[in-house]
Amino acid sequence: MLKISAPQIDSLDHLRHILRNLPGPDTAARDAALAREPLLTKPRGALGRLEELAAWLAAWQGRHPPVMDRPAAATFAGNHGVMKHRVSPCPVEVTWQQSKNFAEGGGSINAFCRSTGTEHKTYDIAIDSFTRDFLEGPAMDEDDFVAAFNVGMAAVEAGMSVFCPGEMGIGNTTPASAMAMAIYGGTAEQWTGYGAGAVGPIMERKIRVVAEGVAKHTADSPDAVEIARRLGGRELAAMAGATLSGRLQRVPVLLDGFPCTASAVFLEAFQPGALDHCRISHASAEVGHGMLTERLAQRPLLHLGMRLGEGTGAVLAVHLLRAAVTCHADMATFDEAAVARAER
Amino acid sequence: MLKISAPQIDSLDHLRHILRNLPGPDTAARDAALAREPLLTKPRGALGRLEELAAWLAAWQGRHPPVMDRPAAATFAGNHGVMKHRVSPCPVEVTWQQSKNFAEGGGSINAFCRSTGTEHKTYDIAIDSFTRDFLEGPAMDEDDFVAAFNVGMAAVEAGMSVFCPGEMGIGNTTPASAMAMAIYGGTAEQWTGYGAGAVGPIMERKIRVVAEGVAKHTADSPDAVEIARRLGGRELAAMAGATLSGRLQRVPVLLDGFPCTASAVFLEAFQPGALDHCRISHASAEVGHGMLTERLAQRPLLHLGMRLGEGTGAVLAVHLLRAAVTCHADMATFDEAAVARAER
Repeated sequence: MLKISAPQIDSLDHLRHILRNLPGPDTAARDAALAREPLLTKPRGALGRLEELAAWLAAWQGRHPPVMDRPAAATFAGNHGVMKHRVSPCPVEVTWQQSKNFAEGGGSINAFCRSTGTEHKTYDIAIDSFTRDFLEGPAMDEDDFVAAFNVGMAAVEAGMSVFCPGEMGIGNTTPASAMAMAIYGGTAEQWTGYGAGAVGPIMERKIRVVAEGVAKHTADSPDAVEIARRLGGRELAAMAGATLSGRLQRVPVLLDGFPCTASAVFLEAFQPGALDHCRISHASAEVGHGMLTERLAQRPLLHLGMRLGEGTGAVLAVHLLRAAVTCHADMATFDEAAVARAER
Repeated sequence: MLKISAPQIDSLDHLRHILRNLPGPDTAARDAALAREPLLTKPRGALGRLEELAAWLAAWQGRHPPVMDRPAAATFAGNHGVMKHRVSPCPVEVTWQQSKNFAEGGGSINAFCRSTGTEHKTYDIAIDSFTRDFLEGPAMDEDDFVAAFNVGMAAVEAGMSVFCPGEMGIGNTTPASAMAMAIYGGTAEQWTGYGAGAVGPIMERKIRVVAEGVAKHTADSPDAVEIARRLGGRELAAMAGATLSGRLQRVPVLLDGFPCTASAVFLEAFQPGALDHCRISHASAEVGHGMLTERLAQRPLLHLGMRLGEGTGAVLAVHLLRAAVTCHADMATFDEAAVARAER
């Protein structure tokens, strides 16, 4: 079989061009899903959001019935120069150690992937080469950003049923908060949260770093793509690349918690509708996540108080998509099962 | 291997005796789960409710680590004499037709069970012999109630990882509402909901039937067990039997939506703590369900706007328990993976 290469970007302007020319949903597949739903042996609407999910998958996979035979996830790992300000109680060594743990199958993300039958890879996005402290200058040069973004793009393959981008990066809720604040406004206090354990003086430093970073890099009103380069991070750019790659290859995307969702909002801010092929998988306990889901006018699928990252919430929601597809594709219709309908 | 028979009851007084002498949780298994959780390679608490679920399973399975190798579900089907008042737009034939559909694998419950690897049986609880219209007399004689309750008790086997009781019974949200109101007070308007499509005059009749049934059968202040006999239904009694059987055989129970949860609350009303081995799997769109979850001081695990019954919400939550157990049992510890911990 011919191997189709994943899409790549050459530059930020190339990314902007792609965002202005995104493919839309497959309306024929969506309409076929909507037409089948009321034929199934259950009261109309009785499966609630699962019915909407089946139609959404059909629309963005570009096929009816939708399938869930190849869910996939990736954990992108990177380190952050802002950690010199001690914005997290975790040592940066944990980024390497956990990446190794994931590669050996010992992490939460591995357990979730095993329990859902989801394939998983871990990507080292230049962990050794820390993303620049944004208080010293832009977090990434254009080449850095493009390279990281392209790693994410290449992680997604046409034919995957759904893709779950995840991250591992000690300190990365700091750039996530900074990007969210730069795009949506508000204060550093509103956008900055607990992360992996920021309390007391750590939290005070984290808020100050976010506030100063946003002030330093937004004075000239950069566009959303430029904000992602100046205030983001390598693994955050990679997740955004995977998210966009899904759109271009008809692979719907399940967004995870705060860093993952924050990594993607610049796409939507630059081009409204750019995240229509995405669903937010779970409501993270991280404070900024609820604000992001509101801005994106989405309701998370799961509400379990998780705040782990790695892609865990997204992979947990793979269950729900599989149940939705199994019902949609496999249930008997009223005619097939000779079941009477309600009188209306 | 010796086949251990499932518990059975001889009479309502026997049921009362069992309820006054229920086995408690296995605190050693729970403590072992709580002791392992902080050793796993993730920030403390980062898996949210999944961590609590692992400890709950250990406590009520009576083993550590808990397992999810044999989830099981049953759909109990029965018909209702109150349907002569046309409290649902669905014809009663649907109870038979859907039971046949489930037996042939064509229902939503079958799709959910396939997608979660859950074994499933359908039980005909004397579908042909309608539960008596409670406006004419008690819904069941003691023998009727005991027989139905025992079918449910026998459906649960020691060694099942979790049990999901479900129902199919056109009209059964009417007795469910009546039982809930008789136990918790309030008005028929508060407890009576849409069911499979009650609107306009159907809803008006449904509310009137609930109000009159409760008034007729509660004037002499019967206990909760007697309320279940007078106002319930055969498949509702069977679900309650399965729920109690789980407690006696160390099989935790996932409660489904409104009829399922309403079928079980009399156990808790008679003996506080009787449902400690249960979790409410999902927040049904049926109006009375939220009131029941509040009374039971539980938070449902899923919030997907489902209102189908059959056990579907409970089986969908099997996913979450499996993910919780996979993480708890399989993840590496900090020491095993040589991952550093956060500085505290």
